[in-house]
Amino acid sequence: MLVNGKAYRTVWMEGGVVKLIDQRLLPHRFEIVSLAGYLDTALAIQDMTVRGAGAIGAAAGYAMAQGALEAPDDGFAGAVDRAAEVIRATRPTAHDLFFAVDSVREIALGASTPQQGRQAAVAAAQRLADENARAGERIGEHGATLLRDGMRVLTHCNAGWLAFVDWGSALAPIYWAHQRGMKLFVYAGETRPRSQGAKLTAWELGQAGVAHTIIADPAAGSCFQRGEIDCVIVGADRIVANGDVANKIGTYTLALLAKHHGVPFYVAAPRSTFDLATPDGSAIRIEERNQEEVLCVWGKAADGTVTKVRVAPEGSSARNPAFDRTPASLVTAFITEDGVLKPDPAAIARFVHAARTPADERLSDARRRR
Amino acid sequence: MLVNGKAYRTVWMEGGVVKLIDQRLLPHRFEIVSLAGYLDTALAIQDMTVRGAGAIGAAAGYAMAQGALEAPDDGFAGAVDRAAEVIRATRPTAHDLFFAVDSVREIALGASTPQQGRQAAVAAAQRLADENARAGERIGEHGATLLRDGMRVLTHCNAGWLAFVDWGSALAPIYWAHQRGMKLFVYAGETRPRSQGAKLTAWELGQAGVAHTIIADPAAGSCFQRGEIDCVIVGADRIVANGDVANKIGTYTLALLAKHHGVPFYVAAPRSTFDLATPDGSAIRIEERNQEEVLCVWGKAADGTVTKVRVAPEGSSARNPAFDRTPASLVTAFITEDGVLKPDPAAIARFVHAARTPADERLSDARRRR
Repeated sequence: MLVNGKAYRTVWMEGGVVKLIDQRLLPHRFEIVSLAGYLDTALAIQDMTVRGAGAIGAAAGYAMAQGALEAPDDGFAGAVDRAAEVIRATRPTAHDLFFAVDSVREIALGASTPQQGRQAAVAAAQRLADENARAGERIGEHGATLLRDGMRVLTHCNAGWLAFVDWGSALAPIYWAHQRGMKLFVYAGETRPRSQGAKLTAWELGQAGVAHTIIADPAAGSCFQRGEIDCVIVGADRIVANGDVANKIGTYTLALLAKHHGVPFYVAAPRSTFDLATPDGSAIRIEERNQEEVLCVWGKAADGTVTKVRVAPEGSSARNPAFDRTPASLVTAFITEDGVLKPDPAAIARFVHAARTPADERLSDARRRR
Repeated sequence: MLVNGKAYRTVWMEGGVVKLIDQRLLPHRFEIVSLAGYLDTALAIQDMTVRGAGAIGAAAGYAMAQGALEAPDDGFAGAVDRAAEVIRATRPTAHDLFFAVDSVREIALGASTPQQGRQAAVAAAQRLADENARAGERIGEHGATLLRDGMRVLTHCNAGWLAFVDWGSALAPIYWAHQRGMKLFVYAGETRPRSQGAKLTAWELGQAGVAHTIIADPAAGSCFQRGEIDCVIVGADRIVANGDVANKIGTYTLALLAKHHGVPFYVAAPRSTFDLATPDGSAIRIEERNQEEVLCVWGKAADGTVTKVRVAPEGSSARNPAFDRTPASLVTAFITEDGVLKPDPAAIARFVHAARTPADERLSDARRRR
């Protein structure tokens, strides 16, 4: 996507260096971070310099490639495995991360020599990133069939191109339709505590010229009541076998509101977000993040610096679950790179298996054995 | 209630000067503002130096008393009416404001002489404030009958003593029960855009020694899903004849979540919040406030100053409805100073009429004529 007229991906690799857009500074500053080794890249995932399921997946794949590049000939497999463990431990919820780590690890260790393993790991990470970008574009194409001129779309958090390598998931249909002249209006829910909706989604939409407004999270119900929302599109961090969805905290509430008001609720995600090994939402581990995210807010001060202010009184604590679980019964459909799916287990299984190669099957077996 | 061990009311009058706690600075600074004339007090209502239905009502009553004190002998009635118009125009949603303005105006204009009108207005304003404080305490006593040891209560915005003259509405039952040794745990929803839950409710609960934690607004659904909420208690800005409730934006969503999860949803409010002249929620005017409240956040910077930071990108706009409407069907019961009421029109009418005096009837007639 374009930033001030120049095309960018959210994350990419140059030689052994991973480069990514620093999402902690947006929308106030646009800066590219260079990460020399896999530990740097792992830290960037953990501290949310890069965030969003697809972008995390791509960064994790590149980090694994860095791990392979850094692994010595002697003890190559052990070093690659250690890198995999470190990268897996950065964030617990997004399935794309584990998918990428497992995929690249498998390919690196499947090569005949360490040198071939390193080359294969870099190629695999690059392929995952390219697939993510392509999946986003195709999600856009399929999702656009659900949109009509004049529609008002509510989205939550940021599942735009910053959350992917390019295009995004929830915002991809909006970009696709907008580029073809469809008039849409987007309500970007702020998404406290990290305000990715107000910060990232609004910034993306502004760069793309899509009409939008920001609402505080508590205002969504009022917008539904007044009939101002025609459909909801969100992304996902993990979609499990029965169609339950883990996504940014607050998603479940929007799904319940949409159901109550008879408004379609779509979840847009590529194949890498689907996790058939987990039977239902109750088995998804939900990350609890630092309470400082709730007690404080980052923003741009009058002097232009990006700074933190404390909202809450000293002495008060906060709970900070980063994701919630939306039951499949509240999902109207999934928007995927292969088309629009009903949220039923058979349709999900067919979709996931459709792309299976023998290597995928081996990977899946390996996962089940873990 | 106590602040650092000293008893305060939220708003009071000394001679012709209205004094109130500056709620824009809390929880970071505790300061008392002195307002010399009715225009100063009206501005303090408008800019939310004082906020919360009951506190707004008391401040509006005192402002009317100031208006009477400032009105000349010659043209007394006209000057009192002009003051009433100015004060009415400060905020559109809270019924307590109109109730107080009409009550004090009626009494000021009903006196035989301007001098008697001024004295009567001051006495009426004082009586309204005292009634508000007493109503809060009795709401506490009645509401505490709904609580049990160990309960986890979710509240929204601030309907504590800062929103009243003393005690509060939603928090009054918690204070009452806590003072009698009941162990309660309160989830204080942040309540963006102004974060009164994180700022004021958490501060009040901390001062009172009530166990609590702050959650970002989108986290409420997750707390319900995990069975962590035993009941919800919120305040109200206006409760109309059929039991529909106008309250801080986000209330409707919590009511829907509570209904879906089988959790009681209580609305605590004194008689002055009930508005029989409005038939249902659709007729309540909802204030749309400045978008800067959504685009920015006020908090305490590292250097201790209370400052504003911008969250959203330059160029993005926001919608900012300050209240929403919760249908009576989602309300389990109202907690009032006379007891716990079912949300049905007959019960509401009986409750409101129970306290009617002939003067109230005249006032009601006067309102209907407007």
